[in-house]
Amino acid sequence: MLSRLWRLMIGKPLRTEHAMHERLPIVLALPIFASDALSSVAYATETILRQFESMHIRATDWAIALPISIGIVTLIIMVVVSYWQVIFAYEKGGGSYMVARENLGLFMGLVAASALLVDYVLTVAVSIADCVAQSDSALNQVGGPWDALFDNKPLSACMLVLVILLANLRGVRESGTLFAGPSYGFITVLAIMILAGTFRVLSGTPLAEDVTMPPDTGGDTPINGLLLLRAFASGCAALTGIEAVSNGVQAFRKPEARNAATTLAILGGILAFLFIGITYLAVQYRIAPSEQETVVSQIARATFGKTGPGAVLYYAVQFFTALILFLAANTAFSGFPRLGAILAEDGFLPRQLTSLGERLAYNNGIWTLGILAILFLLVFHGEAHALLPLYTVGVFIAFSTAQLGMVRRSLRQRPIPYPGLTINLIGGVVTTIVLFVIAASKFIARDQPPLFGIPWLYEGAWMALLLMGLVVAMFYAIHRHYELTDRQLAHIPPDYDRPVHHTVIVLVPSRVHRGVLEALKYARSLSPDALAVHISYEQEKEQRLREAWNRYGGDTPLLVLNSPYRSLIEPLMRYIEEAEKLRDDDVVTIVLPEFVPAKWWHTFLHNASGLIIRWHLARRRGIVLVNVRYYLDE
Amino acid sequence: MLSRLWRLMIGKPLRTEHAMHERLPIVLALPIFASDALSSVAYATETILRQFESMHIRATDWAIALPISIGIVTLIIMVVVSYWQVIFAYEKGGGSYMVARENLGLFMGLVAASALLVDYVLTVAVSIADCVAQSDSALNQVGGPWDALFDNKPLSACMLVLVILLANLRGVRESGTLFAGPSYGFITVLAIMILAGTFRVLSGTPLAEDVTMPPDTGGDTPINGLLLLRAFASGCAALTGIEAVSNGVQAFRKPEARNAATTLAILGGILAFLFIGITYLAVQYRIAPSEQETVVSQIARATFGKTGPGAVLYYAVQFFTALILFLAANTAFSGFPRLGAILAEDGFLPRQLTSLGERLAYNNGIWTLGILAILFLLVFHGEAHALLPLYTVGVFIAFSTAQLGMVRRSLRQRPIPYPGLTINLIGGVVTTIVLFVIAASKFIARDQPPLFGIPWLYEGAWMALLLMGLVVAMFYAIHRHYELTDRQLAHIPPDYDRPVHHTVIVLVPSRVHRGVLEALKYARSLSPDALAVHISYEQEKEQRLREAWNRYGGDTPLLVLNSPYRSLIEPLMRYIEEAEKLRDDDVVTIVLPEFVPAKWWHTFLHNASGLIIRWHLARRRGIVLVNVRYYLDE
Repeated sequence: MLSRLWRLMIGKPLRTEHAMHERLPIVLALPIFASDALSSVAYATETILRQFESMHIRATDWAIALPISIGIVTLIIMVVVSYWQVIFAYEKGGGSYMVARENLGLFMGLVAASALLVDYVLTVAVSIADCVAQSDSALNQVGGPWDALFDNKPLSACMLVLVILLANLRGVRESGTLFAGPSYGFITVLAIMILAGTFRVLSGTPLAEDVTMPPDTGGDTPINGLLLLRAFASGCAALTGIEAVSNGVQAFRKPEARNAATTLAILGGILAFLFIGITYLAVQYRIAPSEQETVVSQIARATFGKTGPGAVLYYAVQFFTALILFLAANTAFSGFPRLGAILAEDGFLPRQLTSLGERLAYNNGIWTLGILAILFLLVFHGEAHALLPLYTVGVFIAFSTAQLGMVRRSLRQRPIPYPGLTINLIGGVVTTIVLFVIAASKFIARDQPPLFGIPWLYEGAWMALLLMGLVVAMFYAIHRHYELTDRQLAHIPPDYDRPVHHTVIVLVPSRVHRGVLEALKYARSLSPDALAVHISYEQEKEQRLREAWNRYGGDTPLLVLNSPYRSLIEPLMRYIEEAEKLRDDDVVTIVLPEFVPAKWWHTFLHNASGLIIRWHLARRRGIVLVNVRYYLDE
Repeated sequence: MLSRLWRLMIGKPLRTEHAMHERLPIVLALPIFASDALSSVAYATETILRQFESMHIRATDWAIALPISIGIVTLIIMVVVSYWQVIFAYEKGGGSYMVARENLGLFMGLVAASALLVDYVLTVAVSIADCVAQSDSALNQVGGPWDALFDNKPLSACMLVLVILLANLRGVRESGTLFAGPSYGFITVLAIMILAGTFRVLSGTPLAEDVTMPPDTGGDTPINGLLLLRAFASGCAALTGIEAVSNGVQAFRKPEARNAATTLAILGGILAFLFIGITYLAVQYRIAPSEQETVVSQIARATFGKTGPGAVLYYAVQFFTALILFLAANTAFSGFPRLGAILAEDGFLPRQLTSLGERLAYNNGIWTLGILAILFLLVFHGEAHALLPLYTVGVFIAFSTAQLGMVRRSLRQRPIPYPGLTINLIGGVVTTIVLFVIAASKFIARDQPPLFGIPWLYEGAWMALLLMGLVVAMFYAIHRHYELTDRQLAHIPPDYDRPVHHTVIVLVPSRVHRGVLEALKYARSLSPDALAVHISYEQEKEQRLREAWNRYGGDTPLLVLNSPYRSLIEPLMRYIEEAEKLRDDDVVTIVLPEFVPAKWWHTFLHNASGLIIRWHLARRRGIVLVNVRYYLDE
């Protein structure tokens, strides 16, 4: 039953040869790798405007948001071009990790990898928590039976994580098909909105509805260099999610690198268009952020109107925006298992992460990500914004290591590819500056509620940095263990093919029955001088056993060990020790007759001495345990 | 650490030879077997008076309580004499179960046994719940920090069960020593109270303090035969706990039967004296039951006074009465494991109940009782009185089966022992009548709060009867299983010593390392034509393995099975099936190289294929699995 349900949810197993077919064409790869980046577009403009508000920038200077956006788009293009080079240089995937590792050294590679892994977990936690919060407030306005659906936020968030997890266990291709609709829907409705809005602005048509305007009083600070930089850093949230493609080159159809690069370019173009378009309209409409309504929603409302013929499009924007926030988690489910597999292949994470599941997805990585994200959601009580600043830091660590790594790589090549070098150098310097600006301004989050009674414990960048440090330490510890294991296993002694000698002992219970005779027969087949050993508690039973042995035991001698404290293990272990001392054999083979009842619950009606013996012998060297099982039919 | 703490709580293991020394002299046996019976004395008189009250008996007729008590004491003496004969007739113990089984047939024996087992569990639950309720109200009056001690009643009750459980795991002798003080203390202070009270009555000294008097108005029903019978039946609560001695004959020092019989006689004498004494004083003092104070407490107060020189004795009575209610549970901890062991020896309960623990106690029985009692306490929310009527039914089933069994036994003897026969016949008839009176009047408990919303679900005798029926059904099911198992195991085929032939397969992972070579060497020692099998997922690794095999594999052939769905188990199982068909061997021996890392947490860094293979092969016949383990040093 359970396994059928599982088969229904996950699908039939796929043959390894299908791996190629399972790989993604561009049209399916884009929605998988783009959802995180697309979702950042939904809030990047708003982040800049909020920064203006909190810095009390005077309303006349708010139009500077457009140049800032253009600057960020330039940065996006630089990052895209940089990763483009990364993709062709490292066709096996691995992105920032591989670039940094090869060009900046192992340590920087692991730092980039840990930043990305921590970020993937945070992406899932943040976007799911955000999605739950938004859906809950939306459903509360709808009312009715739906009202209660997302009331238990942590539980709802965990359920949503499980939904994405299951979709990803179905395999990368099918999750691509599942998620294509929402991603393309989001792009389409936002593009329509931008075009319609631009037409409205250019044709001088008044807005369909009123929007929140920037405060004329209150803000009176003129914009300056430092404030510009901080606003710029805030807007850089739009860049999150871009690096995913470079980690997942192997998920693409052949030619992998070219398809991945094309996808990345398309993604960059869409991001640039949507981000500049939204900022342009926000500036033209003179929209200010509001507690009640997102900036995108205000633009949609002002463009299409909440009533009348445009309403359908307004609601479509709302719907797809909510959906894309949910799907942002999917990018992480695509990136984390792949990067995990690459790290595991290199011996920095448990090797189990390299194994392909039934549906050719990295199941272990998918489960790991899901469980970690759920833990994060539970620790942070499903509160979205508690987690946000934690992860922009990680994104920019990945960017700067990748770009500076590419700079180093270019410098080593002859002839030096100056155009690429220049782009990477500028990109690397800018992303590094942004990284420091974010880390410094968010190191301790002052405007958050206290956690465990400590005010600065919540959500500062320090926590992300600490986590990354721990992850890097874990990488090294795991690597050391694999190296040690390898060295020990590789040492093959010269006499490796010397024949083995063993003492064979068959353990006999107080009654000689069919199962015991099977075990005895087996023991004799291993060694003609097998020995039977019985641990005796009771004189009476011992006597009966001796009689039975005379009849059935053949010429195998029976040794009876007395156990004054009624312990099975102690006398046995003492005897084995003595046997090892006396005989110069390699191993002691212990043949254990074991009981297999017809029904599992019958187990409770028989003693568990087999289990107990196995448990104790499992910790001793030089012993080989052989279970000879006898089956009951009823 | 943990094992040391355990050693401290339980004590050192005892040698089997010490079993004799561990057995009980009369002075220690009495407190162990008497606590339940003694505790019933504390409330038997009160039960009769409460019955008078609820039947509205007129106050002048309340003096009839004394003749009723004398009648009950006569019944006690009959039961004692009857069990005395049981003890000598069945020196191995087993009490009502053995008597009924041998003389009334297996079914009646099992009915008696189930009644007793259910009763032991209920005794623990009832007395502990009672003790918690009384201690809680006492502590609430004391106030201060102690107030909260028993506030969580179910939790407190479970903790108390664990205390008694641990004391009993220390062994029967030590628990006797532990519990001797309270039992003898209880007997002593109650005897002093009765003597002092009688002196006060005979000398005509007025009472030290006022007591609650029977209501002069309200009750106007004259006593009649049926009402007398019901009052009598209520007072029979005083008989609970008497049968325990006859189950535990083997706990006594030699000569077991004589010591047990003497203990029983002493117990009967003490019970008779205390019960008649208390009822006599209650009648003479004209005490009526009160919600605020127990009858025993009223007698003690009226005899000694709450202030003045006698106050110490008054408080001693209070203290020891509370303590004896707690210790009543201990009788069950002595009786249940012994009866369980006897039933297990006969194949009606799991055999594990027969095994003696480190301290020569029946540990498994003690744990079983403790856990069942805790379950009952949790289901009934730790409410004491919810459980009370459940268990008088069981006690009287045990009595009547034992006595009627003894009647049957006497009838078979030649010459027929008429005096014994007469006593048992009268006893048997009376206890049977009492049984029916109790069962009929308590079948559905109408004055209890509803359970799960159903008014009659709580605490009726029907529940005890249903439970006993289920237990009897379980006895038969277990017995059937043991019989079937026995028959299957006893069938030894005539060719039992025909030498065994086996196919030996060594499973090889994708890398040939030291551990694999150890396993290979071992496999070769089992059979010169051992075969190596590898399940291949990847062409590349397969190629490397073949090369390594050419170097290290010797002349053992390597068979590579392709696994297109990356499953380890399926190709292996298919191959084994084919191998079994092709070769006419008895068994397939599979040698599995297994990894033992130096630290337990290293296990997470290696795949669990060994475990998975073991899990799957464990369910297949004709396979012997041999784990050859290789140990890592660091």
